[in-house]
Amino acid sequence: MKRPIIIAGPCAVESEEQIIRIAIELKKIGIDYLRGGAFKPRTNPNSFQGLGDLGIKYLLEAKKITGLPIVTELMTIEQVRKYADEIDIIQIGSRNMYNYELLKELGKYSKPILLKRGISATYNEWINAAKYINNGKNVILCERGIRSFDLSTRNVLDIQAIPYIKKNTNFDIFIDPSHAAGNDYMIEPMSLASVIAGCDGLIIEVHDKPEEALCDKEQAITINTLKSIMKKINKLLGD
Amino acid sequence: MKRPIIIAGPCAVESEEQIIRIAIELKKIGIDYLRGGAFKPRTNPNSFQGLGDLGIKYLLEAKKITGLPIVTELMTIEQVRKYADEIDIIQIGSRNMYNYELLKELGKYSKPILLKRGISATYNEWINAAKYINNGKNVILCERGIRSFDLSTRNVLDIQAIPYIKKNTNFDIFIDPSHAAGNDYMIEPMSLASVIAGCDGLIIEVHDKPEEALCDKEQAITINTLKSIMKKINKLLGD
Amino acid sequence: MKRPIIIAGPCAVESEEQIIRIAIELKKIGIDYLRGGAFKPRTNPNSFQGLGDLGIKYLLEAKKITGLPIVTELMTIEQVRKYADEIDIIQIGSRNMYNYELLKELGKYSKPILLKRGISATYNEWINAAKYINNGKNVILCERGIRSFDLSTRNVLDIQAIPYIKKNTNFDIFIDPSHAAGNDYMIEPMSLASVIAGCDGLIIEVHDKPEEALCDKEQAITINTLKSIMKKINKLLGD
Amino acid sequence: MKRPIIIAGPCAVESEEQIIRIAIELKKIGIDYLRGGAFKPRTNPNSFQGLGDLGIKYLLEAKKITGLPIVTELMTIEQVRKYADEIDIIQIGSRNMYNYELLKELGKYSKPILLKRGISATYNEWINAAKYINNGKNVILCERGIRSFDLSTRNVLDIQAIPYIKKNTNFDIFIDPSHAAGNDYMIEPMSLASVIAGCDGLIIEVHDKPEEALCDKEQAITINTLKSIMKKINKLLGD
Repeated sequence: MKRPIIIAGPCAVESEEQIIRIAIELKKIGIDYLRGGAFKPRTNPNSFQGLGDLGIKYLLEAKKITGLPIVTELMTIEQVRKYADEIDIIQIGSRNMYNYELLKELGKYSKPILLKRGISATYNEWINAAKYINNGKNVILCERGIRSFDLSTRNVLDIQAIPYIKKNTNFDIFIDPSHAAGNDYMIEPMSLASVIAGCDGLIIEVHDKPEEALCDKEQAITINTLKSIMKKINKLLGD
Repeated sequence: MKRPIIIAGPCAVESEEQIIRIAIELKKIGIDYLRGGAFKPRTNPNSFQGLGDLGIKYLLEAKKITGLPIVTELMTIEQVRKYADEIDIIQIGSRNMYNYELLKELGKYSKPILLKRGISATYNEWINAAKYINNGKNVILCERGIRSFDLSTRNVLDIQAIPYIKKNTNFDIFIDPSHAAGNDYMIEPMSLASVIAGCDGLIIEVHDKPEEALCDKEQAITINTLKSIMKKINKLLGD
Repeated sequence: MKRPIIIAGPCAVESEEQIIRIAIELKKIGIDYLRGGAFKPRTNPNSFQGLGDLGIKYLLEAKKITGLPIVTELMTIEQVRKYADEIDIIQIGSRNMYNYELLKELGKYSKPILLKRGISATYNEWINAAKYINNGKNVILCERGIRSFDLSTRNVLDIQAIPYIKKNTNFDIFIDPSHAAGNDYMIEPMSLASVIAGCDGLIIEVHDKPEEALCDKEQAITINTLKSIMKKINKLLGD
Repeated sequence: MKRPIIIAGPCAVESEEQIIRIAIELKKIGIDYLRGGAFKPRTNPNSFQGLGDLGIKYLLEAKKITGLPIVTELMTIEQVRKYADEIDIIQIGSRNMYNYELLKELGKYSKPILLKRGISATYNEWINAAKYINNGKNVILCERGIRSFDLSTRNVLDIQAIPYIKKNTNFDIFIDPSHAAGNDYMIEPMSLASVIAGCDGLIIEVHDKPEEALCDKEQAITINTLKSIMKKINKLLGD
């Protein structure tokens, strides 16, 4: 079993200082990619929607300083045209999984696409959405929890997606335990479970001061917690 | 109780001859708006995706001949910029309810927007999506069935949405019984039920040769069936 | 279209005086059956669970005084053996739809059974459950809302169940708008919608002092509201 | 981390020879409890419903020969009264999670109860159901998959239930990967994931000739596969 890719970082890029500060700490503990939202789709149009272009600029600054490649969500064809060359993995959020025109545009670039599953998308719809992106070339699927009848957790992590996707497709599958759980205490057990079930990567929300995060602070873990999870993953994999 | 707006037409514009032929028949029975898909979001990237620009051209032709104003789905910012002036009601499909950048663009035009509910969107998310469109100005909400655990029908028509939206918001609410049921025999009872429950409009898939329809043929009703439903609605409303 | 059967009464029999008082009022407005819970299945074991045997006694008293036949829920084989002869329609709640041993026992009596749909039961499971009761003889199906992802309402009334059951089975189908909506303001529109969609009966929670009801008070309507709904139903049916 | 309890055996006791033959093999590989259904709740009243009393007799025979304690489902108060003393862990199936009268009866005995989660039960309902059994004394909760909108798998294993139950209650939690997945190839990854996430036990359907099993043959794994899973669990736990 090979070590899964670890993507980590804050929900949103909040300032140049914040993303650089966190990136430096994350670099030290050995993550593979830095994440941070510049364009934030939010249910309420009056909620903080991210720093936009400035957020991308700060992410690239953090990349220059730390050497960490970056993962961030793009939401429109224009954003893709503008930033596809500079971002290392383009994230497509669950709200845009059915945005087929956006998906088609992504197929024109050679960058890897992290395609999150729609909140109630069937496996079949998700796999078909991936095919809209240049017939699935360079697509990584990302399970991030499905909507259920129980609001005790934000969503339900469909961990069975891992063996399903591995058996029935050639796609890599990453897991986002943060948006599935919507809290911090489930991140460790769900990360370890996903790794042992065979996922190819994890994308985890981390903040050095979770209580001050501008979005999704309930689900952000500290850098120390991530460090401990990574140590347990390594042990699990026999290193 | 005022008579609801009736929008009817085929799932897709299939040819100039087809849409004009159907439009003429629908005009005779007194519908208010003609619908027909030019841009068709489809789960499978290899399914028929609509005639595109040509479809819009044929719809406008049908409008010129019959005088019927038209309703059609637009899927991208570019399509909105190109066609917002010519279409009478712009339909946003359930797959794009969370496509906030598209919604923001729509707010720049004065045309009515028929905003379909996402397949698993909560009332709160749906109402918030409407607010992305110029704070909800000119938005009509459209319930079209939600996803459930039972595949005996295509979706479950959430008819409670009618009293909920009427009581808690100022939006008009239309019902699409065709995509909820996914079959023809439920269209009449669901249409009548929606009218008596207070909906402001109905959008119904109709074809003069349902068995030959290029998409969603199971749920298309004939023009005669629609005529009979409209007669029953009028009787219900005491005309 | 024939007038649907109207079953009405309080969620729970709370006292002899209460059920008789309400029954007398309901008799005056012309309902067909009196309902009232004696055995109340409750999520929380510490909630009020009904008056039990005493509740049945008071219901029978109310029947004697008003002449109204009664509908009440039974939860165990013992209760069925004890009360099947005295109750006019035996209600089986959604929690017991899969309680096959109870269903088999019911098949030994000739009384009508009002079988509520399980909260996430498919049509197929529901119809099969009915067949456990003497192969469906004397069973009336009752749709009472299904569980969804949106807690804005208690459940989602699956009104499509009416045409589905009418087309695919020989069962009568009743609608319980009270447990679907979980509020009072949806009862009128949902009742009228169900009638026009072809339901054979309605079972509605009514209280003369809803604010004092011992259970489900949010969804109880007043006797006057029921009177007004019944008048509108009669008008709908052309009387 | 302590080694989880392993319960294994066929879906149904099919004959005296079958259950003894399988029990002997399972004993050799070191499982903790033998499972086998004598009373089988089935959606279709005409499906095989188990051998009933005879099934219990054969199970007890297998116990006598192998020394393996037994786990089996009971469905009625009568069955509980008859067999509570002889069964080592009484299983209550998901269909009976809301059967409160049955749960109350179980509280009168000192045997452990394996309480499966209802197919759409919230955590709150499940925990409350456990409290119906002598306020939760001797209850083990068992997650077995919840119903979703996607029928690619039988159900969705809600693995987040493990950290939720561990953090918020004092109950032990077991996982049934067989009924969640509904296929054989997911049993290994889901078992390992559940163990690493902290479950206290696993209940797995095993058959020595899965293709001949009288029920649920798609999800039965072979005894060899179980042996391999147990070896991997031991390795995971550092033995």
